[in-house]
Amino acid sequence: MRIGVLTGGGDCPGLNAVIRAVVRRGVQDYGYDFIGFRDGWRGPLTGAAVPLGIPAVRGILPRGGTILGSSRTNPFKEPDGARRITGTLAEQAVDALIAIGGEDTLGVAARLHDEYGVRCVGVPKTIDNDLSATDYTFGFDTAVNIATEAIDRLHTTAESHMRVLVVEVMGRHAGWIALHSGLAGGANVILVPEQRFDVDEVCGWVTSRFRASYAPIVVVAEGAMPHDGDLVLKDAAALDSFGHVRLSGVGEWLAKEIERRTGKEARTTVLGHVQRGGTPSAFDRWLATRFGLHAITAVRDGAFGQMVALRGTDVVRVPLAEATARLKTVPLEVYEEAKVFFG
Amino acid sequence: MRIGVLTGGGDCPGLNAVIRAVVRRGVQDYGYDFIGFRDGWRGPLTGAAVPLGIPAVRGILPRGGTILGSSRTNPFKEPDGARRITGTLAEQAVDALIAIGGEDTLGVAARLHDEYGVRCVGVPKTIDNDLSATDYTFGFDTAVNIATEAIDRLHTTAESHMRVLVVEVMGRHAGWIALHSGLAGGANVILVPEQRFDVDEVCGWVTSRFRASYAPIVVVAEGAMPHDGDLVLKDAAALDSFGHVRLSGVGEWLAKEIERRTGKEARTTVLGHVQRGGTPSAFDRWLATRFGLHAITAVRDGAFGQMVALRGTDVVRVPLAEATARLKTVPLEVYEEAKVFFG
Amino acid sequence: MRIGVLTGGGDCPGLNAVIRAVVRRGVQDYGYDFIGFRDGWRGPLTGAAVPLGIPAVRGILPRGGTILGSSRTNPFKEPDGARRITGTLAEQAVDALIAIGGEDTLGVAARLHDEYGVRCVGVPKTIDNDLSATDYTFGFDTAVNIATEAIDRLHTTAESHMRVLVVEVMGRHAGWIALHSGLAGGANVILVPEQRFDVDEVCGWVTSRFRASYAPIVVVAEGAMPHDGDLVLKDAAALDSFGHVRLSGVGEWLAKEIERRTGKEARTTVLGHVQRGGTPSAFDRWLATRFGLHAITAVRDGAFGQMVALRGTDVVRVPLAEATARLKTVPLEVYEEAKVFFG
Amino acid sequence: MRIGVLTGGGDCPGLNAVIRAVVRRGVQDYGYDFIGFRDGWRGPLTGAAVPLGIPAVRGILPRGGTILGSSRTNPFKEPDGARRITGTLAEQAVDALIAIGGEDTLGVAARLHDEYGVRCVGVPKTIDNDLSATDYTFGFDTAVNIATEAIDRLHTTAESHMRVLVVEVMGRHAGWIALHSGLAGGANVILVPEQRFDVDEVCGWVTSRFRASYAPIVVVAEGAMPHDGDLVLKDAAALDSFGHVRLSGVGEWLAKEIERRTGKEARTTVLGHVQRGGTPSAFDRWLATRFGLHAITAVRDGAFGQMVALRGTDVVRVPLAEATARLKTVPLEVYEEAKVFFG
Repeated sequence: MRIGVLTGGGDCPGLNAVIRAVVRRGVQDYGYDFIGFRDGWRGPLTGAAVPLGIPAVRGILPRGGTILGSSRTNPFKEPDGARRITGTLAEQAVDALIAIGGEDTLGVAARLHDEYGVRCVGVPKTIDNDLSATDYTFGFDTAVNIATEAIDRLHTTAESHMRVLVVEVMGRHAGWIALHSGLAGGANVILVPEQRFDVDEVCGWVTSRFRASYAPIVVVAEGAMPHDGDLVLKDAAALDSFGHVRLSGVGEWLAKEIERRTGKEARTTVLGHVQRGGTPSAFDRWLATRFGLHAITAVRDGAFGQMVALRGTDVVRVPLAEATARLKTVPLEVYEEAKVFFG
Repeated sequence: MRIGVLTGGGDCPGLNAVIRAVVRRGVQDYGYDFIGFRDGWRGPLTGAAVPLGIPAVRGILPRGGTILGSSRTNPFKEPDGARRITGTLAEQAVDALIAIGGEDTLGVAARLHDEYGVRCVGVPKTIDNDLSATDYTFGFDTAVNIATEAIDRLHTTAESHMRVLVVEVMGRHAGWIALHSGLAGGANVILVPEQRFDVDEVCGWVTSRFRASYAPIVVVAEGAMPHDGDLVLKDAAALDSFGHVRLSGVGEWLAKEIERRTGKEARTTVLGHVQRGGTPSAFDRWLATRFGLHAITAVRDGAFGQMVALRGTDVVRVPLAEATARLKTVPLEVYEEAKVFFG
Repeated sequence: MRIGVLTGGGDCPGLNAVIRAVVRRGVQDYGYDFIGFRDGWRGPLTGAAVPLGIPAVRGILPRGGTILGSSRTNPFKEPDGARRITGTLAEQAVDALIAIGGEDTLGVAARLHDEYGVRCVGVPKTIDNDLSATDYTFGFDTAVNIATEAIDRLHTTAESHMRVLVVEVMGRHAGWIALHSGLAGGANVILVPEQRFDVDEVCGWVTSRFRASYAPIVVVAEGAMPHDGDLVLKDAAALDSFGHVRLSGVGEWLAKEIERRTGKEARTTVLGHVQRGGTPSAFDRWLATRFGLHAITAVRDGAFGQMVALRGTDVVRVPLAEATARLKTVPLEVYEEAKVFFG
Repeated sequence: MRIGVLTGGGDCPGLNAVIRAVVRRGVQDYGYDFIGFRDGWRGPLTGAAVPLGIPAVRGILPRGGTILGSSRTNPFKEPDGARRITGTLAEQAVDALIAIGGEDTLGVAARLHDEYGVRCVGVPKTIDNDLSATDYTFGFDTAVNIATEAIDRLHTTAESHMRVLVVEVMGRHAGWIALHSGLAGGANVILVPEQRFDVDEVCGWVTSRFRASYAPIVVVAEGAMPHDGDLVLKDAAALDSFGHVRLSGVGEWLAKEIERRTGKEARTTVLGHVQRGGTPSAFDRWLATRFGLHAITAVRDGAFGQMVALRGTDVVRVPLAEATARLKTVPLEVYEEAKVFFG
């Protein structure tokens, strides 16, 4: 058996740990051969591939990123994409494919499996933790740890200068990183995409924190929006240095609004890419490794069209379609629970 | 309502986060008063208590240890212990008690509840993650992160000198820390209390690693034992500097055996107390905070004789008796899974 | 003797370590009393003060920020400022003042000493490491460690997506943080305020890195400027969401220029306030502690109008005037040395 | 020109950074060729060598250990050792040698240079920071950071259980790691090899700390000794599990003595090898990189028989003989300064 492996979408700590586990068990326990496709679906689309054996995966467990490269290429948006992929797989004598990626990457895998009979097994990946089919995805714990450490650091600056510090974290559609890092970091306000926020209410929490002689930290997911968000976005439009329209991020916008309405100095920190790079946390290495081990076993079992998922402490299999069916957002009652720490 | 809180057993990152969450929700949402008992069950036994309000829990979220102190005092081993406790609770007008601790602390809470009608709610705590009633306990993730970071560091020393490095981690009865940190750290051998090990087999893995031109890391739980462990323990007995019998730990013993049998240099690192101290990981702060929030709600709901537990991503309630019913050990199949990385 | 202590300017990891060392030695070895003035020079200006004894400094060594608060208040810009300060000192029976701060704070101390006879000892503080009178200032090492860790993390993202990552670090007038973290993080281009840069040359280094099949990290100090910087600033001016003129930071601007000129995707990370908050590195705790010990000894010795400074491994005294006399910038030959790693 | 490079003695974070800097500048600026000798002096002794070009040094900057391996082999203790080395150098057409190591490794380089005309340049390396010719050696700052972080963690355990925690750190002949990490970690007692300690005095500090309602941390260098140390060592001798004499380390011994004399519970943590492994701190990467750049320039300048050294913020050259002439120990007055924090 010859197995192809690819990683698609944004990079995420733990991708290499999956690849390593797949190859180690595949070679040692099942006697498989491996081929690594480069840059997500671009690899099987163009034939770009690298050999993938035990020497190639030595030492990659603690490394962030992916040794196979990644891209957001969608073969169904390329002319004749699906057929070119099946062509590459036939040429390279690839019997099955392990696709490691998020909604988009796995969506392609599902279609290739359902419509073209490609024997795919999926491994879910999203730093945002917003896939409904699995309790957690790897990369998320690392991102939360990094954001929490940043919030820890910002507390002392906020207190020393009695300033508001707004921290913008990742999370376009789901507020998991904001919620977990905000709770873990002792933030005084947490804003998530799942619930539009009221700026005056935010200012109320900020003010009440100052009254208690402490300085507030406001954690805001990049996808969080005020009640009147559409208006805001229009207002926030400005010309950048090339004359293009430029939107301030919500963090920057919110800091200005807080300054304006409360009269307190406010500063923004946008954590950005540091949240998704670097060595994975122990939890993510463990989860990614277990996902890898179970994915190659799924291949051995012929469980195609499925992906691995975490349920409690067990790794189980679910249909690929499930992965992309529904966004896993922060439940309202969990978010409400956090509000006891606001203000 | 007036609620007592105590922390018992070994310290564990996250205890303060539980206390804070209990008090914040209890005061703000339910209007309760709190009293903190000092040093586990010694507090209600002797009457040693401190006021516990919102000012007392400010800023303690990121701090390891416990602001209430801890001890291993068991009131059922003290003369008239249970009666002295009910006496203190009556005197202090305490309506309910939240006990945060492991098997022993919660076992006392269960008996006080069942036999003396003390209104107790439990919060499970064990750094070893060996309580069967909950998917995870807080403190465990922090310990695994610390052990993993140490293993990361030891790899480079092992490689530079082509030495065996044996790392002894916590885990007297269950190998969770060894298994998770060993897998996350890329150890070449992992030994757990759940399965007696064969020293020659260990030496085989060590030798095979050297043949591949790499140096091995052996992670061993403090409670792991060789096949002929009882004999070993007798042999290992030596007189310490005060003339008392002294047992070498298993790590030290194993390093010597590996040296003797393989002729390779071997060194031991015993991680010890650093695994249980210091600031909790983001996951542990999150879990401890949620446990605290749900524990005080259990009090409000009159769910006495119960404790909070994690199931998947939900916090649920289980009878206190369950917590201590069965040790959660590493399942054999999960341990076997890890062996693909041995050698 | 009764000694006043204040901290001025931007916060910086290590301020609390100085305060603690001053008070510990002052109380224990010399029998002094202490008073802490709040928020830099605002404290003696308005009389805002807090008691400062050994209990107040317990446990503050590892904490970032300053327990005394800080501000940029300059008494010489306030009506009757100097006289109000001498008034407060007389009222509070303060015999001498320890001022911990940067150029501005120490400049005020120097004038108060020279013109009003206030008995001041200074402790230099700048996260930017740009005071010429001392080899290093505390806070700098912490900032460099944080920036280096961020660069470590960004490498894997850059490689996975074959993108340029631009990291903007602190340093308005001196490039020390950029230089040290850039070198330590293995950056491929480092840009400092001391030397205007040529965007085409930067693009050359970027392109050469891609040719070697790696992705470049560009570290840029916030104060670095292109050759034609003045023009750029004008062009970069844009209206923010409130209709005010807004300047893109140099990092954001540079990323866009690199994209435009090389056709490669580029992203910016602005590290911002996380560089100056949180627990100090071991080096900074050591340096701050030694500065504190020597500052209070300078008071005992009557060495007023002076400040402590690091020379090699020794703490020495230099006139306060020296601290502010000349900015310590990165010497050209040291910057040139780093260029061997560019591209 | 063809340059040999070797690393000798115990491993140390920063060795790879030196190798990388040597090769980068050597190849790019001077057009040199390189050869890497394996395992310290064993390499040129036996001819074991690896090619060393820019591809070999890619990505090694943040990695601990040494890609060249290390050993404590002393050619002057091998039959015909020096002649075999000059033979290898001639065979391999090596024009000059860069030896990176501590007292022993550099001592060999000095003799080879002085007695056999081998063109050597040295780079000093000792994690203990005990070379008198340089202000700091790389690896030291990393070790101090690791030890400080461990002490930070142990504080919370000590406080929660009101126990004494004894931390044994590296430092056989000099107490630099103990002093710096002890001061940075807020230890309550610091014991160094430079001054024999009195156990009763230690117990006095311990007791006074408990009286203030805090729990003490005692940091002890592995080479620290009580006043009556020789007796102690004899008493501490015990038979290990193989019937060999075994000495308890000073940390373990001291914890028992403190328990016996004060009646307080005491525990020991021996940090061991984790202090010398893993990724270097930013300071160490910077220092190692600068040492590497200046070492290859010394080769170009024909400055043989010399080594690079740090003086203030400058890298200078000193005769190799100086490196080994005198141990740099902690000056008594610096140690005395630290005592204000004892107890």
